[in-house]
Amino acid sequence: MTDISRRKLMATGSGLAIASALPKSASAATDVVPPVHHMVYFWLANPESTEDRDKLIAGLKSLAEIPEVQRLHVGVPASTLKRDVIDNSFHVSELMMFNSVEDQDVYQSHELHTKFVEECEGLWEKVVVHDSIMA
Amino acid sequence: MTDISRRKLMATGSGLAIASALPKSASAATDVVPPVHHMVYFWLANPESTEDRDKLIAGLKSLAEIPEVQRLHVGVPASTLKRDVIDNSFHVSELMMFNSVEDQDVYQSHELHTKFVEECEGLWEKVVVHDSIMA
Repeated sequence: MTDISRRKLMATGSGLAIASALPKSASAATDVVPPVHHMVYFWLANPESTEDRDKLIAGLKSLAEIPEVQRLHVGVPASTLKRDVIDNSFHVSELMMFNSVEDQDVYQSHELHTKFVEECEGLWEKVVVHDSIMA
Repeated sequence: MTDISRRKLMATGSGLAIASALPKSASAATDVVPPVHHMVYFWLANPESTEDRDKLIAGLKSLAEIPEVQRLHVGVPASTLKRDVIDNSFHVSELMMFNSVEDQDVYQSHELHTKFVEECEGLWEKVVVHDSIMA
């Protein structure tokens, strides 16, 4: 084997190694964020019940199984400094990211979502939804 | 060079290639989401003005320069299917992620943020903020 062919072989070897490592690197480097953000705020019917809150949180987390849901973050109010514009009166929040508006619409009628609504809608007295698409 | 030493050299070459690609792969694999989510909805004073909307969007995007801001997504209402619970009357939305409540508080008084408020607060007539921490 000549030096050149050995270098080519080595280069190929390294190239394969890079290629096999690339898919995750590439997705991290570009960090493609699903562009449709579905943000939901729940006010509990029984705000004092941590049991109800935890049941709602668990129910929301189960929605991650729906294929169209790319990312799901369930939250509770954060203790940021009080300002007039802040409305942290909600009890539970949900942030979902989808690849498209169509995927979000499909999610709404997915059986796991309708099952969640049937089982949990008694827990809240008010719900507000804001749907955004990245600008 | 023997076959063995060549293979070792090739293996080392591949190893280096993988190692150099790993940090990003590793961060993608763990995908640590900053836990504090600062969600802001703006209603423009002049909703018909795309110039005002674009100025607000540009102003919001400039806030990504603040070190405490881990992620920033600026949006406009998405055309999801209409339902009673959806309030997509806002004109611009902002989703920021922070590593801690303290970081969010620091962001509020950062000079780039106060400059943004001074320059852009005339653009909106109403703003609502919800701050969540992941449950």
